[in-house]
Amino acid sequence: MSEDPWLNANEQRAWRSFLGMQRQLSTHLYRHLQREFGLSGSDYEILVNLSESPTGRMRAFELGEATDWEKSRMSHHLTRMAQRGLVRREPCAEDTRYADIVLTDEGRNAIAEAAPHHAANVRAWFIEAVGPERLAVIEEASDAVLTALTHHDNQADHG
Amino acid sequence: MSEDPWLNANEQRAWRSFLGMQRQLSTHLYRHLQREFGLSGSDYEILVNLSESPTGRMRAFELGEATDWEKSRMSHHLTRMAQRGLVRREPCAEDTRYADIVLTDEGRNAIAEAAPHHAANVRAWFIEAVGPERLAVIEEASDAVLTALTHHDNQADHG
Repeated sequence: MSEDPWLNANEQRAWRSFLGMQRQLSTHLYRHLQREFGLSGSDYEILVNLSESPTGRMRAFELGEATDWEKSRMSHHLTRMAQRGLVRREPCAEDTRYADIVLTDEGRNAIAEAAPHHAANVRAWFIEAVGPERLAVIEEASDAVLTALTHHDNQADHG
Repeated sequence: MSEDPWLNANEQRAWRSFLGMQRQLSTHLYRHLQREFGLSGSDYEILVNLSESPTGRMRAFELGEATDWEKSRMSHHLTRMAQRGLVRREPCAEDTRYADIVLTDEGRNAIAEAAPHHAANVRAWFIEAVGPERLAVIEEASDAVLTALTHHDNQADHG
């Protein structure tokens, strides 16, 4: 670090406001899912990914790529979801050494019931609070951050 | 839900981009803290809060308010941090039924070492990638979301 790394007062205020928003928004969204539908944020994330797969099944490593979770967290969480009947493990048709994670009817019902309410909260608390002009700026900014992170990863790979 | 709750294609794209950015940014920031300094994101959050307290000590419930963690998560995490020597519990001077959480010298050294590197990453990956104009919009938007969530909480309290 050759330069002063610290954020100035404006940057610090914006960063803390962004962090606070991110935390409060996810706390509110997940608390609602838990209270009304008995689903954690992690449950919801797995169910959304499986329900958007055309076959309703994915390999565990594909779920890992989609969610960015560590392998052990994924494995433990899928075991708990299987115990609750939301998913089941089935041998993969193409290579029986591996398991597919399959959405059960119960899992499909759970996500179908929760999803419109979750979407309504995302709309009320984020989309409408932000408004269309600021939303477009946030999308641009998000893409710029993702590009910076990818650039960093590529440097690290070749550094 | 009287109206169609679903997000349209633009809203959905912006929301997913925002979620992806949020996830990737925190994954990168916390991975760096863990690899270089042996601190998890949760460790870092506790250490920042304690190090910014003028006395270097806070009650557990104050840390809970600052981080929005559940009481049991806080209690378990503080126990693990105490075992690692980063914090210690001391009877509260004003009311000895309660414990203060106190930053140890080791905890203070850990945050002093990690913080400038963390700040440099926040600067490179977020502040500079976003740029000053979009950063001002994100701050406004974050405040608008926090206002919408507070409004919802107040309605829920009086509903």
